[in-house]
Amino acid sequence: MSDTQDGAVRTVRKYIERHRAAFLDDLAEWLRIPSVSARPEHAGDVRRSAEWLAAKLAGTGFPVAEVWETGGAPAVYAEWPSADPGAPTVLVYGHHDVQPAAREDGWHTEPFEPVVRDGRLYARGAADDKGQVLFHTLGVRAHLDLTGRTTPAVNLKLLVEGEEESGSTHFRALVEERRDRLAADAVVVSDTGMWSETTPTVCTGMRGLADCEIELYGPDQDIHSGSFGGAVPNPATIAARLVAALHDEDERVTVPGFYDGVAELTEEERALIAELPFDEAAWLATARSHGTFGEAGHSTLERVWARPTAEVNGIGGGYQGPGGKTIIPSSARLKLSFRLVAGQDPDRIERAVREWVAARVPDGIRHEIVFGAATRPCLTPLDHPALRAVARSMSLAFDGSEIRYTREGGSGPAADLQDVLAAPVLFLGISVPSDGWHAPNEKVELDLLMKGVEASAHLWGDLAAALR
Amino acid sequence: MSDTQDGAVRTVRKYIERHRAAFLDDLAEWLRIPSVSARPEHAGDVRRSAEWLAAKLAGTGFPVAEVWETGGAPAVYAEWPSADPGAPTVLVYGHHDVQPAAREDGWHTEPFEPVVRDGRLYARGAADDKGQVLFHTLGVRAHLDLTGRTTPAVNLKLLVEGEEESGSTHFRALVEERRDRLAADAVVVSDTGMWSETTPTVCTGMRGLADCEIELYGPDQDIHSGSFGGAVPNPATIAARLVAALHDEDERVTVPGFYDGVAELTEEERALIAELPFDEAAWLATARSHGTFGEAGHSTLERVWARPTAEVNGIGGGYQGPGGKTIIPSSARLKLSFRLVAGQDPDRIERAVREWVAARVPDGIRHEIVFGAATRPCLTPLDHPALRAVARSMSLAFDGSEIRYTREGGSGPAADLQDVLAAPVLFLGISVPSDGWHAPNEKVELDLLMKGVEASAHLWGDLAAALR
Repeated sequence: MSDTQDGAVRTVRKYIERHRAAFLDDLAEWLRIPSVSARPEHAGDVRRSAEWLAAKLAGTGFPVAEVWETGGAPAVYAEWPSADPGAPTVLVYGHHDVQPAAREDGWHTEPFEPVVRDGRLYARGAADDKGQVLFHTLGVRAHLDLTGRTTPAVNLKLLVEGEEESGSTHFRALVEERRDRLAADAVVVSDTGMWSETTPTVCTGMRGLADCEIELYGPDQDIHSGSFGGAVPNPATIAARLVAALHDEDERVTVPGFYDGVAELTEEERALIAELPFDEAAWLATARSHGTFGEAGHSTLERVWARPTAEVNGIGGGYQGPGGKTIIPSSARLKLSFRLVAGQDPDRIERAVREWVAARVPDGIRHEIVFGAATRPCLTPLDHPALRAVARSMSLAFDGSEIRYTREGGSGPAADLQDVLAAPVLFLGISVPSDGWHAPNEKVELDLLMKGVEASAHLWGDLAAALR
Repeated sequence: MSDTQDGAVRTVRKYIERHRAAFLDDLAEWLRIPSVSARPEHAGDVRRSAEWLAAKLAGTGFPVAEVWETGGAPAVYAEWPSADPGAPTVLVYGHHDVQPAAREDGWHTEPFEPVVRDGRLYARGAADDKGQVLFHTLGVRAHLDLTGRTTPAVNLKLLVEGEEESGSTHFRALVEERRDRLAADAVVVSDTGMWSETTPTVCTGMRGLADCEIELYGPDQDIHSGSFGGAVPNPATIAARLVAALHDEDERVTVPGFYDGVAELTEEERALIAELPFDEAAWLATARSHGTFGEAGHSTLERVWARPTAEVNGIGGGYQGPGGKTIIPSSARLKLSFRLVAGQDPDRIERAVREWVAARVPDGIRHEIVFGAATRPCLTPLDHPALRAVARSMSLAFDGSEIRYTREGGSGPAADLQDVLAAPVLFLGISVPSDGWHAPNEKVELDLLMKGVEASAHLWGDLAAALR
C-alpha cells in the first residue's frame, strides 16, 4: 500500500468511526420495518420502508430522492450528480424488502427487533439487503470528506427495489420504463457476499432463477383410501413422481433442453475455483447440512456457482396433521425453482418445463402451472477496468489484502440492469456465508459492514477514472 | 318368500315403524359428540361417546353394559345372555370413534350437527360407524318382539371400540386380555357397506392396513436455495423419490417381498366379480375421481377388493404458503399406507418397508420411520353356514332380493377378532359407496339404515340354528 493510499485509508476510517453509532441507529430503525414483499399483509410495511429510505437518502445529501411506484411494491430512486464535467455515471442497486421471518421458525430473538451481540447485528434484512444498501449512505459522505468534494466523483444513482425477495416481478418493466433516468456506465450491485471474514473477494456473476408453482387436482375431495385406493390416481403420488423425475442418476436435470446454451466452465476457471481455500466441513457447517450432493463431475463450488439446478422448495398434499388419515388427497402442490447460469434463457426454460410437466400428468389428474417472473443470470469479464477498480477499493478496505474472485449462487435482477442499460454489472458486497440469508437468525458482522462503508468511500474516485 | 317369512317381515317392520323417530333422535344425539380419536384434544369427547353408548345399551335391555379402558380410547362392551340352554354366542363389532371433520374441509353443514335432508342423515359418523352400531339396539328389541322372547336367541355380545379411525392401536391387546369374556362362535362386523341401494350384498372379507410416518431431516434449518442449491441433499426431493419409487410402471409395488403370500383371485372369483353390475362412470362419480388408475392386469373392483396397495396419504416439506420462498427445506414428511390382502403379514411388510426406505435415503439425510398398529386382512369362505344365515336375513330385509357377495377395500380389526377368538367373521352392513366415509358431507340413507335394523332383527334366530 502506498503512503497516499495509507493516508486515504486512515482518513476514511477516522470519518467512519465518528459516524458509526449514528449509522447503526439508522440501520436498526430501518430493520424494525418488516418489509416482507411476499406477504400481502406486509404491503404497508414495504411502503413504509421505501419512504424511510427515501427520507434517509435526502438527509444524506442526495438532491433527488424519490419513491417510485411499480405494479407492485414501491422502489426508491436517488441521484447525486457530480459537478465534474464528463463524470461517468454509476447506478447502485439494492433492495429494501426482506424474506418472511417469524420467531417460531427458530429465531432466538424477534426477527424485526434488531439486537447487537458479540459484534453482530441480528435481524431479518441485516445482511440481505438493508445493511449493504445503507453502507453507501455513509460511504458517499466519507468519499466527500476524503476528497474535499461537495459532489461525488461520479454521477451517483441508487435504485433500491421492493420486490427482490418475491421475484422482482415488476423490476424489469420499471427499468425499461425509466431507462433514461437510470442510464449508467456501470452498475454496482450491493446484494452479494464475500468468500469469508478473512478472504475478501469480489463476485463476478450470479445465477438466474425461474420458479413455478404446480397444483395437481385429483378427486374432487379427499376420499377413503380403503374404498378407492389402488384404483384412482393420487395427486400426491403424481407430485412426488414429478419431483423424482427431475433428475437422472447423475443428478443432472432431465427436462429436455435444460442445458442448452449453458456456458461451461473453462479449465482456467475451474482451476481458479479449485485454488480457493475451500473447507468442505466448514462449508457444510455454514449450510447446516450433513452432506454434499449434486451433479456428477463437479465440485461443490462449481455446483453452487456455475451449474444450473432444479430444486423443490415446497411440496404438500393430503393430511399433514398429527396421527394418520387414510385418504387419497384431493390435491397436491409443488413449488419448484430452477437456478440458471450464463447462456440459459428463462423463457425457454419455462416452455420446456411446462411441456415436460404436461407430458407426465396422467389422465384423471388436472394440473395448473404458474411461473413467477424470472431473473436472468449474469457474468462480468475478469479483465474489465471497472471490476479492477472495485477490487482495488476492496483491497484498501481490507488493509491491502489480495482480492480473489467468486460467483454468487443466488439470483438478483442485476442481469435486467445489464440487459436494459447495456452496462457492465459489478458487485460490492461484504456479507459472509454464515450471515444466514433467508434463514432464522440472519445477522451481519459489524466490522465487515464498516469495511463495506470503506470500500464504498474509496470506490467512486477510482471508478471515475476507470470508466472515463 | 314363504308366508311365515312374509309375516315375520311385516311384524318387524311394524315394530320398527313405531320406534323409528325415537331411534333417530338417539342417533342424532350420539352424532353430536365429536369422538375424533386421531386428535388428542377430542379425547374427552371419545370418552363421552363411550359413556353415552354404554348408557344407551343398558337402557335397551343389555344386563351388562360397561366402558372398558384400554391403553388409549375407551371401548364399550355389552352382553345379553340367552335363556336358551346351549345357545351359541355371537359378538357384534363396531366402533364409536370417527374421522376428523371440519366445516372448512367442504362440509355444507356442521359435521357434528346432524341434519336430515331428502331421506338422508348428514353427519360425521352417520354411516361410519355410529349409524350401523346403533341399528343393533333397535334390531335386538324387534327380534324379541318378533319371537316373543325375553332374551335373544343367541348370547349376544357387543364390542364397540374407540380407536378404529386411528389404527385400533390398543384393540388387539384388549381382545387378547379379555378373550374369555369375548369368546364367541361367530363375529358379526357392522362396519362395512353394500354394493348399492338396489343391489344388496354381503361382504366376505376386508383388506388389512399397515401405515407409517416417515420424517426426513436435511439441513438443520431451511437454507437459501441460491447459496447452497445443487450441492446439498434436499429432504423434500428424497421424500418425493421414495413415493415415486414405490411403484413400477405396471403400478405394482416395488418393495421386495411385498406380494409374498398374496392370495391370488381364482378364475371363479374373478368371474363372480365381473358379473356384478359395475358402472365405472357411476363408480368414478362416487369416488369423485376423474379417472381410474392402478395395477396392470386387474379390473377396478379387483384392484380395490383383492389387490394390495401402497398409497401416500400425506406429503409435506418446505414452504407451502402463498408466494415463493427460495429455500432448501430442513425436513419433509410422508404418511404412507399399505392395504393388505389375505396372505400378507403386516409385520413382514413393516420390516420390508423399513429396509427399503433405509436403503434409499442418501448420506446427509437422516430419517425416522414410525409404524402405526397394523390391521390384518380377513376373508370368510362363501359356503360357511353362518354366512348363509346373514345372507338370508339381508334378503328378508330387502323383500326377498337375491343377495350377492362383495369384499371391502377398507380395513377393520375384524381379523384380530378372527385370530384371537378363533371365530368366523361375518359382515352385516348397509352403507353405500355414496355415503362419503372419511370425506366431507358423510351421510347415511335412512331407508337403508332401517333395513339394517330389519336384518339385525331377523338374524339372531337364524344364526342360533346355523351355529348349533
